[in-house]
Amino acid sequence: MSELLKVAVLGAKGRMGTAAVEALGAAADMELVAALGRTDSLDTLVDAGAEVIVDLTVPASTEANVRFAVEHGIHAVVGTTGWDAGRLAALTALLAKHPATGVLIAPNFALGSVLATHFAAQAAKYFDSVEIIELHHPRKVDSPSGTALRTAQLISAARAGLPAAPDATETALDGARGASVHGVPVHSVRLAGLVAHQEVLLGSPGEQLTIRHDSFNHASFMPGVLLGVRTVGTRPGLTVGLDGYLDLEG
Amino acid sequence: MSELLKVAVLGAKGRMGTAAVEALGAAADMELVAALGRTDSLDTLVDAGAEVIVDLTVPASTEANVRFAVEHGIHAVVGTTGWDAGRLAALTALLAKHPATGVLIAPNFALGSVLATHFAAQAAKYFDSVEIIELHHPRKVDSPSGTALRTAQLISAARAGLPAAPDATETALDGARGASVHGVPVHSVRLAGLVAHQEVLLGSPGEQLTIRHDSFNHASFMPGVLLGVRTVGTRPGLTVGLDGYLDLEG
Amino acid sequence: MSELLKVAVLGAKGRMGTAAVEALGAAADMELVAALGRTDSLDTLVDAGAEVIVDLTVPASTEANVRFAVEHGIHAVVGTTGWDAGRLAALTALLAKHPATGVLIAPNFALGSVLATHFAAQAAKYFDSVEIIELHHPRKVDSPSGTALRTAQLISAARAGLPAAPDATETALDGARGASVHGVPVHSVRLAGLVAHQEVLLGSPGEQLTIRHDSFNHASFMPGVLLGVRTVGTRPGLTVGLDGYLDLEG
Amino acid sequence: MSELLKVAVLGAKGRMGTAAVEALGAAADMELVAALGRTDSLDTLVDAGAEVIVDLTVPASTEANVRFAVEHGIHAVVGTTGWDAGRLAALTALLAKHPATGVLIAPNFALGSVLATHFAAQAAKYFDSVEIIELHHPRKVDSPSGTALRTAQLISAARAGLPAAPDATETALDGARGASVHGVPVHSVRLAGLVAHQEVLLGSPGEQLTIRHDSFNHASFMPGVLLGVRTVGTRPGLTVGLDGYLDLEG
Repeated sequence: MSELLKVAVLGAKGRMGTAAVEALGAAADMELVAALGRTDSLDTLVDAGAEVIVDLTVPASTEANVRFAVEHGIHAVVGTTGWDAGRLAALTALLAKHPATGVLIAPNFALGSVLATHFAAQAAKYFDSVEIIELHHPRKVDSPSGTALRTAQLISAARAGLPAAPDATETALDGARGASVHGVPVHSVRLAGLVAHQEVLLGSPGEQLTIRHDSFNHASFMPGVLLGVRTVGTRPGLTVGLDGYLDLEG
Repeated sequence: MSELLKVAVLGAKGRMGTAAVEALGAAADMELVAALGRTDSLDTLVDAGAEVIVDLTVPASTEANVRFAVEHGIHAVVGTTGWDAGRLAALTALLAKHPATGVLIAPNFALGSVLATHFAAQAAKYFDSVEIIELHHPRKVDSPSGTALRTAQLISAARAGLPAAPDATETALDGARGASVHGVPVHSVRLAGLVAHQEVLLGSPGEQLTIRHDSFNHASFMPGVLLGVRTVGTRPGLTVGLDGYLDLEG
Repeated sequence: MSELLKVAVLGAKGRMGTAAVEALGAAADMELVAALGRTDSLDTLVDAGAEVIVDLTVPASTEANVRFAVEHGIHAVVGTTGWDAGRLAALTALLAKHPATGVLIAPNFALGSVLATHFAAQAAKYFDSVEIIELHHPRKVDSPSGTALRTAQLISAARAGLPAAPDATETALDGARGASVHGVPVHSVRLAGLVAHQEVLLGSPGEQLTIRHDSFNHASFMPGVLLGVRTVGTRPGLTVGLDGYLDLEG
Repeated sequence: MSELLKVAVLGAKGRMGTAAVEALGAAADMELVAALGRTDSLDTLVDAGAEVIVDLTVPASTEANVRFAVEHGIHAVVGTTGWDAGRLAALTALLAKHPATGVLIAPNFALGSVLATHFAAQAAKYFDSVEIIELHHPRKVDSPSGTALRTAQLISAARAGLPAAPDATETALDGARGASVHGVPVHSVRLAGLVAHQEVLLGSPGEQLTIRHDSFNHASFMPGVLLGVRTVGTRPGLTVGLDGYLDLEG
């Protein structure tokens, strides 16, 4: 009978945190030993014997949380945004002093979304044209979505050195051809009824490859969180992006 | 045994004309009595006893062709562009003097495309949000496509008096939200491998309706041409748009 | 200042009923005057002065509920299933004696779904081939869905007298070509993550028309319920199907 | 100035062969040194100094063609079907005696299709449910398509040991749930207007990943043929499947 993995959630009262508490509590191979809100002391993590924390807090507190965890030999799975280059460099330096500890910083826990982006980047160099359509609920304030920006960046990098996509456009209404993100056209649809969706269209003479991801609700993030928690202890150092934990070889 | 309908094609050497000559020649209920190129005399139509002409020429000659036909009691099915308000008014006046003759001016003969536009316009007032994505081959010089512009116009008219679609966008890259055509966002994709495609997305809380048309090649125009030729003799006066010939009642 | 429409919900404790109570209560032009559970007396409807009832109960009680309403001059909007030919005939006879009263029996209140089915039936006769793909959550016990069966029936009726769709299949694995419903192939997908979705594919040489409806949650039913409540008082007699209340002329 | 790669086409009069002759002739880094029909002698290959052959013949002659090439130190890119286990074993044995020579046997040269199948197999183990929809022109005689069978097989292998997809179906019309291929439901649509298309749908609670490939015409095969010709000389021994030549690492 194997030991249960002792896990703690930080930001346990938020929308994502609430879902994580539920998902971790239901996992047969884990024990939820702490669920911290904004005002709870990080010392609770040590007292509870947490082996892994899941940080779903806010940009202002995530760095201190992760630093505390690493200094106490606790692995960390981080879904909070705000990790810029400076923070990542400081964390890398800290992890060098704690070589047995692992940290995963994942901007996106939906396995399907991570896979879709990964596949799109891999396929991009084999096609003449690539465009992105992202579709979201109309309450979203930014266009394009962060996932679309990151996807465009990866596609652009994969196509470095290749000719630009053919495009004979001479006259166009403003905006018709989308936003150019690192040279990749991105189109943002905002439609009542939708949640979060993205299509990458890749075309060459005679064929099209379409990679689409639909996120219908937050349940989609939990398998990725569980995968992160189960894997982080075996991956010392810093990993950015859940795709680093996926088995995507040949 | 019924009489065959005597049909002539004008612009018979062009891409559309060639396809029309083939399709009309293969139709069991029709007889192709003339196939005119640029330099052939219109008198041939009378000599050949044409009952219907199919005009697939160029904007510079279509008006004279149709005028000749109407003055000789020959019905006309017209796929040529360039019929502005002035020309349509003059044609209406001419038809008033020839009350038994019918003319169909159809910017689009693909039945599926005509139906898709019609349905989108009908559905538009029942949803909170409507956006259009049109996708074409990368040799297309104008964005958005003419079909998308017309679809947006019809959708906008159908939604007159309704609240605008919800959209909380605060920050957007230039072009991300598409072109606004009569208030309807239109996104134009140009992708190698594609031909001509259009999606109208309609959304309300909890649901989405998508009406998509794919045109893979010019074969798609011929059923519409045949329907026009068979119907025009029973519809005196001017009809604009093939949907006027479709049976779309309840 | 117009009078508010007095509405009552029957089956108010069920999932649909709860949503209807909320939606009707929020509508600016309506007053919710009663919300009845299983054990409440129908006399409450009269006491409360209800002008319209919304019946979202169960097959065993819906007939008595509607009969009571009609006999008291109350219009009825009915989402409950179980209305077979015998019940419909009896209701028609009853309505003949109450010529000012209207009843709407709607198997589906999602406007998008009703429109999708309507459009598919209208378009069916203009294409060589039609197939249906319906996709649902994996907890669904019946295949194909009721909506797919009804759509296939309407498509088949619209194509009466036309040649069968071309199909050169000589060897096929069992089930590969789907279920034949009135001659229309229907394919049922059951996939974790999905809710309720349907695609009607219509094809002819060179083109395809696709009409897709996605139902993401029960919010999609409420606009249809509200439309029914607002309209039923002006449509005496029996109407089956919400499409009878939609404005779908030319 | 680099040397041109000397290439010969076998089966040069067929539909695929004609397209290959054109594509290879247009490639700036290749020289087409022979284009053989059914009755031409294989000795021509040696006389012409061919370094690579592209075999697009028929099952009855492909084995002898490839054997001849290998015995003369000519690399071979093979699109012909009919390579069963026995033939592959014999070829492997032959290649062992010619360790510098490479052979690629590719059942599918459309890069998009190869990528789509590869991605679907990689993603399959991360989702609860997987189903395949393949859509083809109505002249196709077999259902499901060979590509769908192979995709299902790879998906099934990737999911070995995982629980079956959830499916509560109790009552179903014959065929509604598709054909079960190695436990993966496959649905075959046959629709006028289509060419060759495949969708793999992967679902888990809250999300869906869709990988779709559309093949519009045979132009889609040529980039894969060119990639094969350029690569085969650097890959001694036998490679089955074009994906073996694609760069699909992390």
